[in-house]
Amino acid sequence: MKMNDYIEIVDKKLDEFMPIEYPEDIFKAMKYTVTLPGKRLRPVMCLESCRVFGGNYEDAIPTACAIEMLHAQTLIHDDLPCMDNDDFRRGKPTNHKVFGEANAVLAGDALLTFAPQIIVKNSKNLGSEKLIKILEEYFQAGGAYGVIAGQVVDIESEKGNVQGDKGETLEYIHTHKTADLFKLALRTGAIIANATDEQINEITEFGQILGVAFQIADDILDEISTFEEMGKTLGKDKNAGKLTYTAMYGLDESKNKLSCLLDNCYDIIRKFDIKSEVFVEIISGIKKRVGIK
Amino acid sequence: MKMNDYIEIVDKKLDEFMPIEYPEDIFKAMKYTVTLPGKRLRPVMCLESCRVFGGNYEDAIPTACAIEMLHAQTLIHDDLPCMDNDDFRRGKPTNHKVFGEANAVLAGDALLTFAPQIIVKNSKNLGSEKLIKILEEYFQAGGAYGVIAGQVVDIESEKGNVQGDKGETLEYIHTHKTADLFKLALRTGAIIANATDEQINEITEFGQILGVAFQIADDILDEISTFEEMGKTLGKDKNAGKLTYTAMYGLDESKNKLSCLLDNCYDIIRKFDIKSEVFVEIISGIKKRVGIK
Repeated sequence: MKMNDYIEIVDKKLDEFMPIEYPEDIFKAMKYTVTLPGKRLRPVMCLESCRVFGGNYEDAIPTACAIEMLHAQTLIHDDLPCMDNDDFRRGKPTNHKVFGEANAVLAGDALLTFAPQIIVKNSKNLGSEKLIKILEEYFQAGGAYGVIAGQVVDIESEKGNVQGDKGETLEYIHTHKTADLFKLALRTGAIIANATDEQINEITEFGQILGVAFQIADDILDEISTFEEMGKTLGKDKNAGKLTYTAMYGLDESKNKLSCLLDNCYDIIRKFDIKSEVFVEIISGIKKRVGIK
Repeated sequence: MKMNDYIEIVDKKLDEFMPIEYPEDIFKAMKYTVTLPGKRLRPVMCLESCRVFGGNYEDAIPTACAIEMLHAQTLIHDDLPCMDNDDFRRGKPTNHKVFGEANAVLAGDALLTFAPQIIVKNSKNLGSEKLIKILEEYFQAGGAYGVIAGQVVDIESEKGNVQGDKGETLEYIHTHKTADLFKLALRTGAIIANATDEQINEITEFGQILGVAFQIADDILDEISTFEEMGKTLGKDKNAGKLTYTAMYGLDESKNKLSCLLDNCYDIIRKFDIKSEVFVEIISGIKKRVGIK
């Protein structure tokens, strides 16, 4: 499978999994952000992880789509006026700009239970035991031990409340805000494929490094890119005094670090003999966007 | 078991299930609203439903506590400035007043995955199949098909956007905002006890009527009670032009309707031979608060 084949499948299934039911306002708001055009990195990683460990990627489709919904949930709430207060996302007005703040809060809430419901409803063939394992991964990564931990510390850092070492805090934020969902995608794909614990550990290591790399790339692009390229207002993080990689280490050092991490990613898939053109494409895609070799 | 015994158990377990971990801000905010003193109606119903259908109520403790967490989640977000904008809840400042809006949004989000995580972590003895059933009930009642549907239509009604019959819309709001969590509590308790489908249907009917009755009582108390008695600002719903039972039918007619519904509740537990002093106590407690015989 190629990257674009996966993206096509995910887009089609996201649309199918999200019919507009009554009360329409909430289902429309949920679907709006989930179906904004995107790279679908997380669901693609889930499907590909399932495939490389010998599973049938089709078994991972509901989980992959649920992870994209969870990702959209974090975007909707992060964009709220009381959080990052962003008006644009993927080139379109943010959820609360279209549906109002109350509906945006509720749409995010709804996605948090809708997403695992999609998994359970559409993955009965995996059996209850495996389903519980997948849900445990989802709850851990989607909650106070995962993405939310990252967002809370990120908000605190913006207020200048950093406890302890700044570099460690930044690593903590990147790990939880970004790498946790990458790892969720890769781990659940592997679990569905009946990968061994050792294989799950390997792919987790890959997700951790790729996730941090992705976030550093995002920090770099926030400085060097344009609204047209990124579809969102840029330079806000720096202006808000947010703890970012570029603010801490400068642009050149950030690019060096990113380059090292992406090389690490290549090393891991070579070392563990993970045969995936798609993973290679994801890594090289990040390099290309940031303009490093 | 008596009502107060259950309440004591639930309070103790809620405290145990919610240690303050890093990042402390989020865990403190989550715990704050969950552990505000309350009647613990939903968890008590869950435990008692398990008992009356021949189960061991202790098996239902994690699920009962998770439902109280879900309930707290709805309170935290409903109180937000962009929703009902309430400053007090159970006599204490609301979550966003203490922790700020961003943390209140995130605390609610976190509870939505933390609560089912508590169920899974602490109910392994129930087996994966039953766990999946319980989680399905949780996702359905906690999401866009349950409490959130009620809240969305409630907000629309406040703006004067009522489609179709007002009475039916009000019933829809009460069913989803309130009865859905009552039914969730009663149904999961029954499922844990291995109740038959017929018994589950019976207890669902009880929960539906009790839930609507409870919400009518709440509408009445919003008019006739005081801040000291209720621990929250009153009369706001009426002033906001919200669709409430008392606004639609007047105080006397609302009391009549409430009285009928509570009599229906008695009838159901008699008809189905549900032997529960606790359910009787809950019904008579509502009568007493509103001052009807």
